[in-house]
Parts: sequence; structure tokens; C-alpha cells
Amino acid sequence: SSSTTPIKATLFPGDGIGPEIAESVKQVPFPNPHHGFVAKVDKVCSFMVVIQVFTAADVAIDWDEHYVSTEVDPRTNSFLTWESLQSVLDNKVGLKGPMATPIGKGHRSLNLTLRKELNLYANVRPCYSLPGYKTRYDDVDLITIRENTEGEYSGLEHQVVKGVVESIKIITRKASMRVAEYAFLYAKTHGRKKVSAIHKANIMQKTDGLFLQCCDEVAEKYPEIEYEKVVIDNCCMMLVKNPALFDVLVMPNLYGDIISDLCAGLVGGLGLTPSCNIGEDGIALAEAVHGSAPDIAGKNLANPTALLLSGVMMLRHLKLNKQAEQIHSAIINTIAEGKYRTADLGGTSTTTEFTKAICDHL
Amino acid sequence: SSSTTPIKATLFPGDGIGPEIAESVKQVPFPNPHHGFVAKVDKVCSFMVVIQVFTAADVAIDWDEHYVSTEVDPRTNSFLTWESLQSVLDNKVGLKGPMATPIGKGHRSLNLTLRKELNLYANVRPCYSLPGYKTRYDDVDLITIRENTEGEYSGLEHQVVKGVVESIKIITRKASMRVAEYAFLYAKTHGRKKVSAIHKANIMQKTDGLFLQCCDEVAEKYPEIEYEKVVIDNCCMMLVKNPALFDVLVMPNLYGDIISDLCAGLVGGLGLTPSCNIGEDGIALAEAVHGSAPDIAGKNLANPTALLLSGVMMLRHLKLNKQAEQIHSAIINTIAEGKYRTADLGGTSTTTEFTKAICDHL
Ligand SMILES: CC(C)[C@H](C(=O)O)[C@@H](O)C(=O)O
Ligand SMILES: CC(C)[C@H](C(=O)O)[C@@H](O)C(=O)O
Repeated sequence: SSSTTPIKATLFPGDGIGPEIAESVKQVPFPNPHHGFVAKVDKVCSFMVVIQVFTAADVAIDWDEHYVSTEVDPRTNSFLTWESLQSVLDNKVGLKGPMATPIGKGHRSLNLTLRKELNLYANVRPCYSLPGYKTRYDDVDLITIRENTEGEYSGLEHQVVKGVVESIKIITRKASMRVAEYAFLYAKTHGRKKVSAIHKANIMQKTDGLFLQCCDEVAEKYPEIEYEKVVIDNCCMMLVKNPALFDVLVMPNLYGDIISDLCAGLVGGLGLTPSCNIGEDGIALAEAVHGSAPDIAGKNLANPTALLLSGVMMLRHLKLNKQAEQIHSAIINTIAEGKYRTADLGGTSTTTEFTKAICDHL
Repeated sequence: SSSTTPIKATLFPGDGIGPEIAESVKQVPFPNPHHGFVAKVDKVCSFMVVIQVFTAADVAIDWDEHYVSTEVDPRTNSFLTWESLQSVLDNKVGLKGPMATPIGKGHRSLNLTLRKELNLYANVRPCYSLPGYKTRYDDVDLITIRENTEGEYSGLEHQVVKGVVESIKIITRKASMRVAEYAFLYAKTHGRKKVSAIHKANIMQKTDGLFLQCCDEVAEKYPEIEYEKVVIDNCCMMLVKNPALFDVLVMPNLYGDIISDLCAGLVGGLGLTPSCNIGEDGIALAEAVHGSAPDIAGKNLANPTALLLSGVMMLRHLKLNKQAEQIHSAIINTIAEGKYRTADLGGTSTTTEFTKAICDHL
């Protein structure tokens, strides 16, 4: 059941949570020959868990590691180097940990640099209830698909006069069409029934209006998929009242940022929900969207679930469906069983113990 | 216990839900001499319930009615006339029902016209659990205070080239300072412990950055009030996970629109939550923020709770605290008792029956 040739994939370990994970993984025999990771175990790396679990599931990935630099690369005006970006373009798949966004220094957020420079136009964030992990909501099963390159994230801001600043939101037909196309295709290929386009076109008639118009156009090509338009404020109210009203949600950038976090909250938070950024030409960069959690770093407390589930999304993208399912089940079952859970889920397990439990389920 | 001289207040009955309420109120003796409402009972008006309850509580209000026009007033470029706006400026207090926003005709939303033209700079929306009305959340008690005049609601949008549109978000020091001042003053005078400023300054460093800077400045003058800054996506996740983490929330316009609806959803929806718009010079326009619900109009099913509680906010603004408390208790007790509830709350009562029950509690 193992994939015979290792697949090359880019790896961005990211910042923050990590050293304690690396430490704990040092204790574990590491049979995968396809990565040079063990040698670098002293570097901050939250990915040891992923490698450990993937190895236990016989998935051979040749990880092409790229650490976040501590110096700004003038070619990207960020802490990411051009070589790191090129690696994703070459490998076409990658997995990324949390990267801290340096605030107020005029540098672009690393997350944004990746999305924009790599033209990762759609951000897919599934949020589903984990069996055995109780929240206020049962049977949540939502997919948010977020436009990932423009909108309120244009970076265009300036002071008009003292005390008056403006920022510019850009909506283009091109970006709206491709994310709408992606959402409907996703719905169709994943057996989903409905797509809801989320907007505030009653206020932003031109920008959100253009986004909706693109969704309308695409919807016409999918008569079998139910289609509706929902104003963002109403959407948030309905989501907390009755998430079962929704299925696939597609929306401009900032609304996607907000609603995907809200949906994650319904099932327990960003520590449990995966994400994958989709680009042109089959590019996919899976990503744990939670923060780098400096407050719990160094305590062997980090919950690697979001990262692992993102890895599973990467495997599905690579059509390694069998291994993806195996790993997915092992994670779900470990959490459902309830014996080994990290502190954020009300348990007392260390990251090491939780990871071992997952491997034991494989 | 009655206020002896009637207080003059502007009344915007609004659109939609209403004729059936007016009909039902026709059956009820109407002793209040201070309004000429009965004569106009054939006009669409969702305010008959308010008048009936206020009358039962011996609150004498001389309502200065202004119906939404069916023709655009060129002076306001909206369906609101200049005289309607002037009425609020003269009376300083008013109560407003839902007004449908005509879409795509280039007219300003009536709600926005009111907020901008009257300079209603802060929108206060309390969301608290109603005793006896169960949702997934217990003991919610949140106050959202929304900047109400600028931000994403600037109305500045244009096409750059075909297929590329932009909208402009404006943040000013003036508007940010006054809403921040209002939020902290509100917290202090209402015995609240904490103010959270909600933002997305990691992306919109200049606009949301200016908003935060103003909150920082004001916070310094209130050392007794805890102060924190929370990114909007994280705020939404935390709100659905544990609303008790928050107390008073202050934020730019669009975030307020979104978060106030989310908070309303936690306690049952916009049918149950009041709101009040605050302007300079003691002006206050209380407002039911739910839609005009054309789908249930004509069925005597409308829930007047949001409107009544908004009326209570108006009475508090007028310092009629005793009557405000009486009416508030009557509403709360009627809902808690559970015998008379409208369909949206899972009951079978008509609007008439629910209203009568409230009056009986007075
Ligand atoms: C860290 C931040 C720049 C980012 C965003 O706003 O997109 C994050 O919230 C996310 O959702 O991935
Ligand atoms: C109807 C709409 C224009 C309005 C808004 O966006 O402010 C409404 O959602 C509200 O919250 O009062």
C-alpha cells in the first residue's frame, strides 16, 4: 500500500510551535529515507509530526524544506525567498505551517506573499464536526471557498489628508470567475448539493455586485447544484443559529477569512480544521491556518491536528486517496476515542503521546 | 407613574411586516390621545404594537410620523424626504422600523441615508440571552458598538477598467475617536468591565491601524476598563466558542454589521435584539434592524420584540427608566412564560395575542 517513488513536495515548517515537537520526535525511530529531516531536528519545525505520521502510513514524500528566513528578501519584500516560492511552482504541491505575520514594518504578510505570488486563487477550508469531540453543534459539514488574491487584501492604502486614510478593495472578473468555477466544480465532484455566494452587494453594489454576477454566470452551467446568494451579516447569523442551512460557501477574500474562522469555531477552532490553497496548473499548497502560538511553544502541548488534516488534503490532491483516508481515519479515531487528547481539546496528552496514538491507529 | 407632558418623537413605521398588526390593533381600545394613529390605521404600520404597549405602560409619546415615500426625494437621493430627516433633528429622539433597501437603482439605502445624514455615529446593539428562551448559548451578554458613518459604507465605488472594480474604505480619526469615546463612556456608565476593539490591522494597517490607534488613545483615559485588540476573524471564532470572553466590542462599520448579526444569532436572531443609533447633541434613533420580512407580512405572525426592545432603548435615552424597566420586564416575562410566543420562537401566537400578553404583564 505504499507509493513506490517518493513524491517531491515543498515544506514550509513555519514559526512558533515546534521545537518541543521536534524534540519528541527525536526519540522515535525514523525509517523514511526520503527526507533529510532528522539531521535538522534542532531547527524549529512543527512538521516532524506530519513526517512521522506519513512515514507510519507508508507515504513517501521527498520534502523540499524551506525555512522562513530571518532576513527580508528584496525580491519578494518578505521573509520568504524567491527560491522558496519557486520550489512550490516546481513541485506543484506543498505543506505549510503557521508563519507569524510581522506587523507594522511595511513587509507583506508571509501568508499573503505566498498566496499572491503563487497565484493561489482559491482557499478551501472544510469544517466538519469531529466524531467524539463535542461542541455546541452536531453534524456540521461546511466547505468555505475563499477568493485568495484580491479584495480587501490588495495592499493599497494611503493617507488622503491627515486623519483620513483609505484602503482600496479590488474585485476583478477574472479572479471572481475562477473562484466561482472552482466552487461549483468542487461541489459537483464532491457530491455537494448547494453553493451559497456570500456578499454585501446591498452596500458594495459594484464590487460585490461583480463577484455575484460571476457566481450567477457559473451557476447557470450547473443546474444540478442549488444556488443562493446570502448577505454576509445574515449568513453569520444563520450559521450560528443553524449551520445545516449551508453546504459550500464561496466568497470574496475578507468574508472568507471571517466566515472560515466562524465555521472553524463551530467545530472546535482552527486547531482542528485543515485548509488548502489552490493555484493554476494543478498547484496546491495545504496550510494550517492557526497562529504560531508562541504562548504554548516549548511545552509539548501543540495540537498537530490541523497540520495533519491539511497534509491529508495534500495527499488527496495527489490522488493518494487510500493513504489519505487511512491517515484521516487514524486522526479522527484517536480524537474520538478520547484517551489521547492535547490540552486545547480538554485532554492531558503531550504532542508526542497524541502523535504516537495516531501512528498506533494506522 | 405616567410622564405628564407627552414627549415628541419621530416615528418611521417602515416597510413590510405591518398591515396585519395594524388590523389587529384596530380591535383594541386606544386611549392615548397624543397620537393621531388610529385614524391612519389603514396605512402600513408595524408600530401599532409599540404604541399599544407604550400606552398600556402610561408612556405618553407624541409620535411625529414619517412614512417612507414611494418617490425619491432629489434632496436626499432616497425615498426619505428632507422633512423626515429634519423631524429627527428637531425631536432628537425617534423609533424606526425596518426599511427595505432598494437594490441596484443607484439610490442610497434608506438606513444609510438616515445614519449618514443625521450623523448617527455610533450604533449600539445589545445582545443578551432572554430568560426562558433557550439557544445553544447561556448567559450571553454582549454590547456591540459599531462605527456607523464611514468605513466600507463610503459609497465610493467605480470601475477601473472593464472587469476591474474597486471600492474605497474610509477611516477618519474624527469618526474613530468619537465612536471609541462613546464605547468607553458606555462601558463606564453601564458598569462594564472590558472593551475589545475589533480590527483587521494585520492586513489593513493604515485604515484599521488608525481605528486602533484612536481606541488606544481613548483607552488610556479609562484605566479602570480592561482593553484588548482582537482580529475580526479570531473574534468570530472566539464568539461562537465562548461568548463570555467578550463584554463591550467596538469596531469599524462593516465589522459591526457582521459581528452584531453573529451576536444576535447566539441569542436567537435579529427578531429579538434591539438597537439604537447615537448622534451628536443627544440625538438617538432606535431601530429594529431585522428585515421587513415580506414573506410573513399579512399573516399576523410578525414578532414585534426587536421593535419593542428598541423602543425601550429610546425610553432609557429619554431617562424614562422606570417605564423602560416596566416594559422591558413585561416583554421578557411574556417570552419566559412561554405561553404566548410567535412562530419564529416556536410558538403559535399571533402578533395580536403576543402583544396582548405583554400588555397584561404590565
Ligand atoms: C494571518 C492572516 C494574514 C491570514 C489572513 O487574513 O488571511 C489568516 O487569518 C488566514 O485566515 O489565513
Ligand atoms: C440593510 C443594511 C443596509 C444594514 C447595514 O448593512 O448596515 C443592515 O444590515 C443593518 O445591520 O442595519
